[in-house]
Amino acid sequence: MYHIGVDLGGTNIAAGIVDSTGKILAKKSVLFVMRHNHEELAEDIVNLCKDLVVETSISLEIISSIGIGVPGVVSPKNGMVMLAGNLGVEDMPISHLVGQVLKIPVFIENDANCAALAEATFGAASGSRNSITITLGTGVGGGIIIDGKIYSGAFFGAGEMHQVIRGGGVLCQCGRQGCWEAYASAGGLVRELRQLGVTDKTTAKDIFDAAHSGDILAQQAVDAYTENLCIGLGNLVNILQPEICVIGGGISGQGQGFIDSIKNRMPRMVLGVNRDTKYAIAALGNDAGIIGAAMLGISSE
Amino acid sequence: MYHIGVDLGGTNIAAGIVDSTGKILAKKSVLFVMRHNHEELAEDIVNLCKDLVVETSISLEIISSIGIGVPGVVSPKNGMVMLAGNLGVEDMPISHLVGQVLKIPVFIENDANCAALAEATFGAASGSRNSITITLGTGVGGGIIIDGKIYSGAFFGAGEMHQVIRGGGVLCQCGRQGCWEAYASAGGLVRELRQLGVTDKTTAKDIFDAAHSGDILAQQAVDAYTENLCIGLGNLVNILQPEICVIGGGISGQGQGFIDSIKNRMPRMVLGVNRDTKYAIAALGNDAGIIGAAMLGISSE
Repeated sequence: MYHIGVDLGGTNIAAGIVDSTGKILAKKSVLFVMRHNHEELAEDIVNLCKDLVVETSISLEIISSIGIGVPGVVSPKNGMVMLAGNLGVEDMPISHLVGQVLKIPVFIENDANCAALAEATFGAASGSRNSITITLGTGVGGGIIIDGKIYSGAFFGAGEMHQVIRGGGVLCQCGRQGCWEAYASAGGLVRELRQLGVTDKTTAKDIFDAAHSGDILAQQAVDAYTENLCIGLGNLVNILQPEICVIGGGISGQGQGFIDSIKNRMPRMVLGVNRDTKYAIAALGNDAGIIGAAMLGISSE
Repeated sequence: MYHIGVDLGGTNIAAGIVDSTGKILAKKSVLFVMRHNHEELAEDIVNLCKDLVVETSISLEIISSIGIGVPGVVSPKNGMVMLAGNLGVEDMPISHLVGQVLKIPVFIENDANCAALAEATFGAASGSRNSITITLGTGVGGGIIIDGKIYSGAFFGAGEMHQVIRGGGVLCQCGRQGCWEAYASAGGLVRELRQLGVTDKTTAKDIFDAAHSGDILAQQAVDAYTENLCIGLGNLVNILQPEICVIGGGISGQGQGFIDSIKNRMPRMVLGVNRDTKYAIAALGNDAGIIGAAMLGISSE
């Protein structure tokens, strides 16, 4: 049997047919369109799934589940999206709306939790029981895996990595001053360089590239960025002591040099007892969302 | 059947006979004496247990387990104390040494984890599946309960609440600047008042008492202390989203006014999705350590 994983994003809706070993057999995506009602959004997802099976000649009958990763707060138990601000969605019975058309069981989860589950099972954290996957991009996302399963907390909202690391510091979009996201997101790196008087580099990639080319100020900004990133990682490791922390998202594309500079800093950031935790770059890239969503059905079997 | 819980501390060793409902039938304590070898420390524990059963006329034969809470890093699986700095103990096979004399199964855990387990089962967090218990005293301790069980991380060291909340700030004994313990411990409160120029109050209790009596500077210090306490609590709640946070330790003796000032601050400290987490003062006081240690055997039945 196969599973469809849907990665619902504010820019694209991507879907893939995934087998039980986490391999994507086919994938397809469409632009996300802000919809006036829940039925229209559900229809977009349904049509994407139908197109995917038609194009791959895989019969819907051998698809045993659909999983949807949602950038927001969901209730997996009720199949409800409680709040997904970037999608303009609130209180949407997404599993019901998609499932009633396709006649296939639908599972939902937060998208960062899906990525963490995929990395923990088939990616950089495979073989571990307890892991954290952090996604560094426009924001800082995260998912916690405990005993091989997504830890979603008491009300399905755990793993929000909004933690204050510099009380009284830079204001985060979450409303708190000194929050990790304001430092460890791409915008945090751009701000570090701006504070050094450089305003012509406006993306994280530009700044990393300049640092690699020997630009001293860009190197200083990357250093300050990485230090703050590691302070927050250290907090997570001291609290949760995972076997491994996986770093994903656009910024993780900086590769081995970046992960090495994290590894060098971490012994100083954590208690002695927590120095056995490992650090690795995410292995599944953008596919983690689709694979993790598809796994929601696999792991419920 | 009954269970003995031992709360091994750097000042006292306390032990109690506990029934399966968490009730302490009898308790006894002796001074902790720094010992040269593991056998002597084990003997102190064995003698305390023996005295306890003799004095209460409860036969050792109806004691089905002994649990020991240790202020340090332990390996529950191997019955080893890996490191307990305050006791001067390293790599001690404590379960074996105590068990071979008393011929009763011995279980061990970190003491803060024991207290968290006790509060989660019979105390302020009873009825919850996921909770955090924070102990505010000379240091800041903590235990995480997930699905009714102690979460001990990958290498038995989870729940160390050393998290940086003010990067570059006050140096903590853990070696990191701006660590929560340096602000939320009793010493953190004393320092807040000292920074306001007041040096004649050297305990947290004195400062809380003065604040209650209308001393403006003491009130300012308590305010700054509580704000920092809540920043760290907010981080924990955003990451773990427990149903309830229990506040224990000496400072929690400040009672309802203190917990009310925490509750008032917390909505501002956490994301909207995490505002359903509750806050409560620990219910079991100093007995939590004994009860939680005794439960190690109960929960293994």
